[in-house]
Amino acid sequence: MDFSAATLLVVDVQRGIDELGPGQRNNPQAEDNIERLINAWRDSAKRIVHVKHNSVSPGSPLRPEHPGNAFKPQALPVTGEDIFEKTVNSAFIGTGLEQHLKENNISSLVIVGLTTDHCVSTTTRMAGNLGFDVALVSDATATFAKTGPDGNVYDAEQVHQINLSSLDGEFCQVVTTENVLAAF
Amino acid sequence: MDFSAATLLVVDVQRGIDELGPGQRNNPQAEDNIERLINAWRDSAKRIVHVKHNSVSPGSPLRPEHPGNAFKPQALPVTGEDIFEKTVNSAFIGTGLEQHLKENNISSLVIVGLTTDHCVSTTTRMAGNLGFDVALVSDATATFAKTGPDGNVYDAEQVHQINLSSLDGEFCQVVTTENVLAAF
Repeated sequence: MDFSAATLLVVDVQRGIDELGPGQRNNPQAEDNIERLINAWRDSAKRIVHVKHNSVSPGSPLRPEHPGNAFKPQALPVTGEDIFEKTVNSAFIGTGLEQHLKENNISSLVIVGLTTDHCVSTTTRMAGNLGFDVALVSDATATFAKTGPDGNVYDAEQVHQINLSSLDGEFCQVVTTENVLAAF
Repeated sequence: MDFSAATLLVVDVQRGIDELGPGQRNNPQAEDNIERLINAWRDSAKRIVHVKHNSVSPGSPLRPEHPGNAFKPQALPVTGEDIFEKTVNSAFIGTGLEQHLKENNISSLVIVGLTTDHCVSTTTRMAGNLGFDVALVSDATATFAKTGPDGNVYDAEQVHQINLSSLDGEFCQVVTTENVLAAF
């Protein structure tokens, strides 16, 4: 993929994510990498699409009326950048995102955001299955530790890496921030 | 969920899956558990929907003209059971499955099939995000070892369990064959 010709899709980089969990997170540098990528896109006047989660779950920090719904400072949209709001994990369900991308002849996406195994994975899977060429930036996404239905606790880095291994080559190409920035 | 009132969704239980990989698989008993669940559904005259993957990838054992496209003997559909054919991982993309379920007032699904982290995960995620109440049967699905983009090899059971931990409580309830059969 020619990264510099792709649209940057920024998924759920919102303050309330920090209140999710519970527990340990990986990739503390993810938001800074997202900011570097956003800046590269802006510097070359390429298209950025932001996705925002408006939770409908009681008590979620991502509900629209909660301060946690706000974008993190590293991923604040600016005038001219589109924002698609959603209520489920996939950015393609209940939104006009697919139609918007197709109407604008966008065929390739570079995906970043939070969290690796929930909204990012689901959006990446649907993007690939809907026919888009997708690159997922491993160090510009992150997740939390999880307790499995088997009762075992899996640390955040394990959950992150194994989810990437399930996506890579099947739904997307997994790349790094440096891989992408090298194209600019 | 009242399992006995749900529709059983059987994903990609096809012979060619055995030729995928490469490598080690977990849950060798998955197909036998799928057969036990299918029999329980048939014995109580509940609805079963089969999903079949017709690959469009060159050389795939799941291409329609390849013998591997056939259903495995444990999951052969019988007259009166619907079959939805797909070309991507999600059973909801490029098929009439969502409309079929909604037209038939089906709101809850028990999902089984192959493989955990590709077609089963993607179908489970979309089913949950589309508003269905979903149970995923952990020992009636299986997957293969994977090499991650980090270069590490993850064994099949690790890939399976961590993918389930990412799905459980977010997109579905992860259950066992015995949990489900107890409702019949």
